[in-house]
Amino acid sequence: MCAHTWRIGLIGFGNVGQGFVRILARKAETLRERYGFEFKLIGIADPIKGSVYDPEGLDPKTLIKLIDEKGHIKDYPAGRKDIDSLTICRSEDIDIVVEVTPTNIKTGEPGLTHIREALKHGKHVVTSNKGPIALAYPELKELAASKGVMLRFEGVVMSGTPSINLALEAMAGVDISKVEGIVNGTTNFILTKMEEGMTYEEALKEAQRLGYAEADPTADVEGWDAAVKAVIIANVIMGGNITINDVEREGITKITKEDVKDALSKGQRIKLIARVVKEGGSVKASVKPERVSLTHPLANVMGAINALTFYTDHLGPVTIVGPGAGRVETGQAILTDVLAIHRHYAGR
Amino acid sequence: MCAHTWRIGLIGFGNVGQGFVRILARKAETLRERYGFEFKLIGIADPIKGSVYDPEGLDPKTLIKLIDEKGHIKDYPAGRKDIDSLTICRSEDIDIVVEVTPTNIKTGEPGLTHIREALKHGKHVVTSNKGPIALAYPELKELAASKGVMLRFEGVVMSGTPSINLALEAMAGVDISKVEGIVNGTTNFILTKMEEGMTYEEALKEAQRLGYAEADPTADVEGWDAAVKAVIIANVIMGGNITINDVEREGITKITKEDVKDALSKGQRIKLIARVVKEGGSVKASVKPERVSLTHPLANVMGAINALTFYTDHLGPVTIVGPGAGRVETGQAILTDVLAIHRHYAGR
Repeated sequence: MCAHTWRIGLIGFGNVGQGFVRILARKAETLRERYGFEFKLIGIADPIKGSVYDPEGLDPKTLIKLIDEKGHIKDYPAGRKDIDSLTICRSEDIDIVVEVTPTNIKTGEPGLTHIREALKHGKHVVTSNKGPIALAYPELKELAASKGVMLRFEGVVMSGTPSINLALEAMAGVDISKVEGIVNGTTNFILTKMEEGMTYEEALKEAQRLGYAEADPTADVEGWDAAVKAVIIANVIMGGNITINDVEREGITKITKEDVKDALSKGQRIKLIARVVKEGGSVKASVKPERVSLTHPLANVMGAINALTFYTDHLGPVTIVGPGAGRVETGQAILTDVLAIHRHYAGR
Repeated sequence: MCAHTWRIGLIGFGNVGQGFVRILARKAETLRERYGFEFKLIGIADPIKGSVYDPEGLDPKTLIKLIDEKGHIKDYPAGRKDIDSLTICRSEDIDIVVEVTPTNIKTGEPGLTHIREALKHGKHVVTSNKGPIALAYPELKELAASKGVMLRFEGVVMSGTPSINLALEAMAGVDISKVEGIVNGTTNFILTKMEEGMTYEEALKEAQRLGYAEADPTADVEGWDAAVKAVIIANVIMGGNITINDVEREGITKITKEDVKDALSKGQRIKLIARVVKEGGSVKASVKPERVSLTHPLANVMGAINALTFYTDHLGPVTIVGPGAGRVETGQAILTDVLAIHRHYAGR
């Protein structure tokens, strides 16, 4: 095992960034012992929570204490504060840029610019930002290859539940003809609550109360979030080249409590199913509510849990079930990608 | 991507070896295009099917044609025939040794000797042989590390359904406190048939007729096969150091049709559950028939399908469901491990 300290820069210190740093704060010792993984967190840039940069390394525990107590890291007791996200992308002190700003599915920004800049400057990039991957995967993949660095993004589909790395690495060599799944926890939670007797409106309110749904729930309930994930699955896993406008999309807003009951009485459940199918040379994607038989592998995936079934040539269907979102869950996705970079470049 | 031709030697040309070569025969072009993976199959050693060795490379299609038509490869139209398994382990013409001889859970032989010899001679080893991994993992892991080569064995738990690589790589960084699963397809098939109304004896006969169960079904129905897999999960994934005698083991031979019915009437199913639990510093394993509620993630895994649930700190429970055995399925496990070696050493 080569001695190597990975110098990490973090862009975005919201839920995911905090989840990742929380794991680093708790597990630094374990990661060193188990994987020989050593790191320094060189900088964090976030326009709201604050920015701080110190080539000597920031202390994850201090950062978490500050964010827990003050809600920001502007008073971090060392380092420069006059930096921004592009400082992180371009710094010679940094090997891996972790890009975890919020997803914008129309422009991909600011993540797209961050990822391009970081790759251009020869840095490995790990992201959980769906926008840039859904909008510009072929370009970013080529850019990373041309610079001899890795671009990894396990977190974009089901947070830390393996999906991208499962399909591309743990099942390398299979051909996948179809992927079907429940990739939006909010709508699955709402449908589960409707099965328990709530109306759509009541279930939505409950989801909002628990923090599963935004005040404006459109992205979830109209199927946009699932559609972005379908685009990523299509383009990254199945060799497609589609955009979100190519996805046949229908949300769950028209589903009534009665529909849910009627399905159950027929041995079925209504699920918002994302589906990507390869037919001949082309890849097609859809997101829509469907009645699935209770014996279907996705029928028993309840609440905020997600699942994906890969239909493969060598293995038949393979299904993975796990959390689809969450602060620590997505932080775990970042960690697993950072450890993959470590494994690849620093020995194993 | 570095140009590199992987020179592969195969020990064992039964179901798994044939499954692997069948994939190579069909997918060589795809593997080159998709992964930049180039290979030569240098030698095959099997005391029954025949042995053949040619540093120029054997043709997978010709090998499959011979095995399909004649049941052996003794008439392969080129190469030396006077070689044995140790030739493969020690040859300077070979980079990766694929060890797929039958499992012996008491001695690990002949696989254990093959793997030791190949590692000592600086070759990467990929195996689906449960014996050596269950009996000698710490020794073999250290030997591989000391030689700077990889020892990979995805196929030992659920054939090509990701289990080892899922836990160690795709979820790298999590701590796993418990693993629960259905890891023997034969017994799960028998229990499924009993739910459909067969007696144990009838279901066993049906399993034997379909090739799921051996003439002597002891290894499956008494839980030995599942216990070996529990040992591997304990030692490889959870940092334990147990042997098969440490596994609390009970088979399914005492389960009656009436037990299965009674469970169902109470909203439960009887499943042969392998469980590995970390408690304090120690790791404990058991294999026994249990009644699980129909809402349990493993309850709906029917027939010869297998499943594992990993209970993790960062992700909560993550469940994977897929085939647990089969010729091409285990051949896929070998392929995914060979491609992992390729990715690691020859760029990506």
